[in-house]
Amino acid sequence: MADSRFHKNSGPKTLGELVEIADARCAPEHHDFLVSDVASLDEASETDISFLDNVKYKSAFANTKAGVCIVSPEMAEFAPETCRLLISNSPYKSYAYIAQAFYPVHEELKETQISDGAHVHPSAKIGEGCIIEAGAVIGENVEIGAHCRIDANATVTHAIIGSHTRLYPGARIGQDGFGFAIDPKGHVKVPQLGCVIIGDHVEIGANSCIDRGSGPDTIIGDGTWIDNLVQIGHNVKIGKGCVIVAQAGIAGSTELGDYVVVAAQVGIAGHLKIGTGVRIAAQSGVMRDVEAGAEVMGSPALPAKQCLRQMAILKKMSQKN
Amino acid sequence: MADSRFHKNSGPKTLGELVEIADARCAPEHHDFLVSDVASLDEASETDISFLDNVKYKSAFANTKAGVCIVSPEMAEFAPETCRLLISNSPYKSYAYIAQAFYPVHEELKETQISDGAHVHPSAKIGEGCIIEAGAVIGENVEIGAHCRIDANATVTHAIIGSHTRLYPGARIGQDGFGFAIDPKGHVKVPQLGCVIIGDHVEIGANSCIDRGSGPDTIIGDGTWIDNLVQIGHNVKIGKGCVIVAQAGIAGSTELGDYVVVAAQVGIAGHLKIGTGVRIAAQSGVMRDVEAGAEVMGSPALPAKQCLRQMAILKKMSQKN
Amino acid sequence: MADSRFHKNSGPKTLGELVEIADARCAPEHHDFLVSDVASLDEASETDISFLDNVKYKSAFANTKAGVCIVSPEMAEFAPETCRLLISNSPYKSYAYIAQAFYPVHEELKETQISDGAHVHPSAKIGEGCIIEAGAVIGENVEIGAHCRIDANATVTHAIIGSHTRLYPGARIGQDGFGFAIDPKGHVKVPQLGCVIIGDHVEIGANSCIDRGSGPDTIIGDGTWIDNLVQIGHNVKIGKGCVIVAQAGIAGSTELGDYVVVAAQVGIAGHLKIGTGVRIAAQSGVMRDVEAGAEVMGSPALPAKQCLRQMAILKKMSQKN
Repeated sequence: MADSRFHKNSGPKTLGELVEIADARCAPEHHDFLVSDVASLDEASETDISFLDNVKYKSAFANTKAGVCIVSPEMAEFAPETCRLLISNSPYKSYAYIAQAFYPVHEELKETQISDGAHVHPSAKIGEGCIIEAGAVIGENVEIGAHCRIDANATVTHAIIGSHTRLYPGARIGQDGFGFAIDPKGHVKVPQLGCVIIGDHVEIGANSCIDRGSGPDTIIGDGTWIDNLVQIGHNVKIGKGCVIVAQAGIAGSTELGDYVVVAAQVGIAGHLKIGTGVRIAAQSGVMRDVEAGAEVMGSPALPAKQCLRQMAILKKMSQKN
Repeated sequence: MADSRFHKNSGPKTLGELVEIADARCAPEHHDFLVSDVASLDEASETDISFLDNVKYKSAFANTKAGVCIVSPEMAEFAPETCRLLISNSPYKSYAYIAQAFYPVHEELKETQISDGAHVHPSAKIGEGCIIEAGAVIGENVEIGAHCRIDANATVTHAIIGSHTRLYPGARIGQDGFGFAIDPKGHVKVPQLGCVIIGDHVEIGANSCIDRGSGPDTIIGDGTWIDNLVQIGHNVKIGKGCVIVAQAGIAGSTELGDYVVVAAQVGIAGHLKIGTGVRIAAQSGVMRDVEAGAEVMGSPALPAKQCLRQMAILKKMSQKN
Repeated sequence: MADSRFHKNSGPKTLGELVEIADARCAPEHHDFLVSDVASLDEASETDISFLDNVKYKSAFANTKAGVCIVSPEMAEFAPETCRLLISNSPYKSYAYIAQAFYPVHEELKETQISDGAHVHPSAKIGEGCIIEAGAVIGENVEIGAHCRIDANATVTHAIIGSHTRLYPGARIGQDGFGFAIDPKGHVKVPQLGCVIIGDHVEIGANSCIDRGSGPDTIIGDGTWIDNLVQIGHNVKIGKGCVIVAQAGIAGSTELGDYVVVAAQVGIAGHLKIGTGVRIAAQSGVMRDVEAGAEVMGSPALPAKQCLRQMAILKKMSQKN
C-alpha cells in the first residue's frame, strides 16, 4: 500500500480504463468498477487492485481481500470468489502500467530544475526538463540530454548522457579508470583519455561506478538498467536493454551484447565478449567469452547444466562418505 | 593508543570506577590504581588498561607492559606478573564500556546541529539532539527521531527513522528499488510506493544502500548494525539486533529474523525467510529459506557441516590423483 | 583516441623525444617523425602512436594503420609494413609515459584550489598545490600533504594523508570501524580511537571505504593503488605498491606486505598476515595467512595449483557420470 506521506495517488480509476492501459482483459460487467489504489495481496482492501506474479504467493492470492487482481490465465482458478480478475500474459508488466497510472513516474517537466545545492560547471550542457538535485556535481563539458534526473550527491565528469536517463544518489560517472603499468618503483599512471557514453532511458543505481575509457569510451546502451553498487571498468561496452544487478562488477574492455542479464555479485573478467541474451547466475565468476543465448553459473562460470551436475555429484559424494 | 589529535581522553579513572562500569571483578587492593588510558596489548604503558579477547594475541598478552588487562578467567594464568587483572566473562564487552568511559561516543546533545552545508527539506522532521553533517541531503517528509547522526554526504528520502540511529558517510536510504518488468521494447518501471522504516539504535555503514519498498516497506529492526557497502533491496525486512558485514547483499522481499549474522560478501536471494539466530559464513550465496538457529556456508549455501565435508572430500581427492 | 572535448593534446612530438621518455628504442631514421596523438590499434591514424601489450589484440596489431607502435621484441615480427616500431620490454609502461607526455596527468599546481562547494574544517591542514573539489568534506584536524587531489563528494575524517595522493569521488576515509561487542540487549559500541594514515602517491577509488583504526591505526603504504568500491576494515595495514582491485574487501586487523595484488571481489578475513608479493585471484576468499610470494585462488583460498587441480577433477567427474 502506497505510503501517502511520500506518494500522491491520482486515482480512483475505472477498471475499464485500467484494462486498456494494462494490455489485459476483464469481464465487461466489471468495467465500471472503481479502483482506488494499488496494493500487495495481503494488504489490499475491497477497492484496491493487486497482482500475482510469483507462485510463492499463491496462498496470499487465495486469501486476498483485493477487489481486483491481475493474474495469468493459469492461476485464475485459485482466486477467491470476492476478487474480480484482470487476466494478463504478463501480470507484473500489467501491474507496472497500472501502478504508473495511479502514481506517475515520469512527469515530463518543461523547465529544468537545478537545486541551489548542485554544482554544475558553466560549460556543461543540460537538456530541457532535467532535475539536478542537491549535492550533485556535473563537470566541465559534460552533456546531459532532455528529461534526465541526476539524484543527490551523484558526480559526473567526462560523460555524454542521452535523454530520459537517471543517475541515483551517489552514482559516480566518468572518473579515471584503474589504468597503470605496475612498477616496484611506483606504478605508472596511464592517462584515461576517453569518456563515458550513456544512452537513453538508462538507470544507474545508487553508489554505482562507471569509469571512463582509457582512449576508447565506456558505453552503456539504451534502456539498460544498472542496480546499486555496481562497478563498470574502463572501455566496457554494454548493449541495449541489459540488466546488471547489485554489486556485480565488469572488468575493463569487456563487451556485453544486448539483453544480457548479469545477476547480483557476479564478476566478469576483462577483455571478454558476452553474447546477446546471455544470462549469468548470481555470484558467478566469468573468465571466458560466453556465446549468445547461453546461461552460465559458478565461479569459474560454466554452462548452467554442467555447474548443477557438479554440485549434484559433490552432494552425493559427501553423503556416501 | 588513542590519537590525541582526533580523540579527547576524559581520564584518568580509578580501577574501582572501571570495575563497576565493566561488569567485571578485580582484587580490591587495586581499586585505587589510577588508569590513564586504554591501549592495545603491544602499545600499552604501565598506566594503561588493555584487553585480551582473541587467542591469536596470547603472546602479546604474555609480553604486555599494560598496568591492567581485561581477560577471561581461562586466560588469566598467562598474564605477566606486572599486570593487574580485571576478570570478565566478556572481555571485549567490558573493554567497550571502559573505552566509552574514557572516550564517550554518545554525547547527548540538547540542540540539533545542522551543518550549513547540509540540505534539509523544509517538510522534514528532525528530532532533538541530532547532528546533520555537511553535504547530507534529507528529502521531503522524511522523519528522523531524536539523537540521530547523519554523516557527511549521506542521502535520505522516503524514510522514517527512529532515535539514536546513525548513518555513516555516503549511506543511501530510500531511493527507488530495482523494480521493473523486463521488456525488449524497454523495461517497464514499477513505481516504488513504499518507504524505508529504520528502528532505534541502528547503524548503517558508509556507502551502504537501502532501497525503499515497492508498496510494502523496507524495514530495519532496532539495534541492527550494518557495515559499509552493503546492499539491501526493496521490501526486505530485517529483525532486531542483526549484524550485516561489509559488501553483503540482500535481495528484494527477503525477511531476516532477529539476531541474524550475515558475514562479509554474502549474497541472499530474494523472497526468502531466514530464521532467528541464523549465522551465514562469509561469501556464502543463500538460495533457500534457512531455519532458525542454523549455520550455513558456501555458494550455494549448505549447512556448515555439509559444506565443510564437501571441501574435505575434494581436498582428499585432489591429493590422491 | 582521446576525446578532445575532455582532454587537451599537448603534441605533436618527435619520435626521438618519445623514445627518450619511454625507455625504448627505435630505428634512428624515424627519430624526426612527428607523432600527433596516442590511439588504440584499431582507431589510430598514420600520425598516431599505439601499443600492443595483450596477445588478444595481435590481429588488431597486424591490421593497424598506426604510424608508430610500441611493441615487445617478440611481437615485432607481426607488425604491418606501414608501422614504425618502438621496441620496449614493457610496452604498456612505455605507452603510459608517452601518453603522459601528450596529456600530462600531474600538473604541479603552486596554489591550492579549494572549490567554493567544498567543506573544509578550519583546523584541517592542506598542503600546497592541492585540489579539493565541490562537495568534498574534510574534517577536524585532518592533515593532507602537498599536491593531493580530493575529488567531488569524497569525505575525510581522522586521517593523515601524504603527498601526491588522490581520493576519487565518493571515497570515504576515517569513519568509525565496525567495532562492537555483540549483546542481545543491544550491541555495545567500541570507540574507534585510531586514525587512517595514508602514504604518498596513493590512489583510492570511487566510493571505496577505509575505516579508521580502533586504537591502532589503519595504514595504507606509499604507492598503493586501490580501485572502486573496495572495503578496508579498521586496523588493516597495507604495504607499499600494492594493488587492490574493485569490490575487494579486507577485514579488520589484517596485514598485507608490499606489492601484494588483490584481484576483484576478493575477501580477506580479519587478523591475517599476507606476505610480500602475494597474488590473490579474483573472487577468492582468504581464511588463513599466506606466505610471501604465494599465489592463491578459490573460496576458501588454496594454493593456485591445488585449486586448479580440484576444478579439473570435478570437471572430469561430471563428464563421466
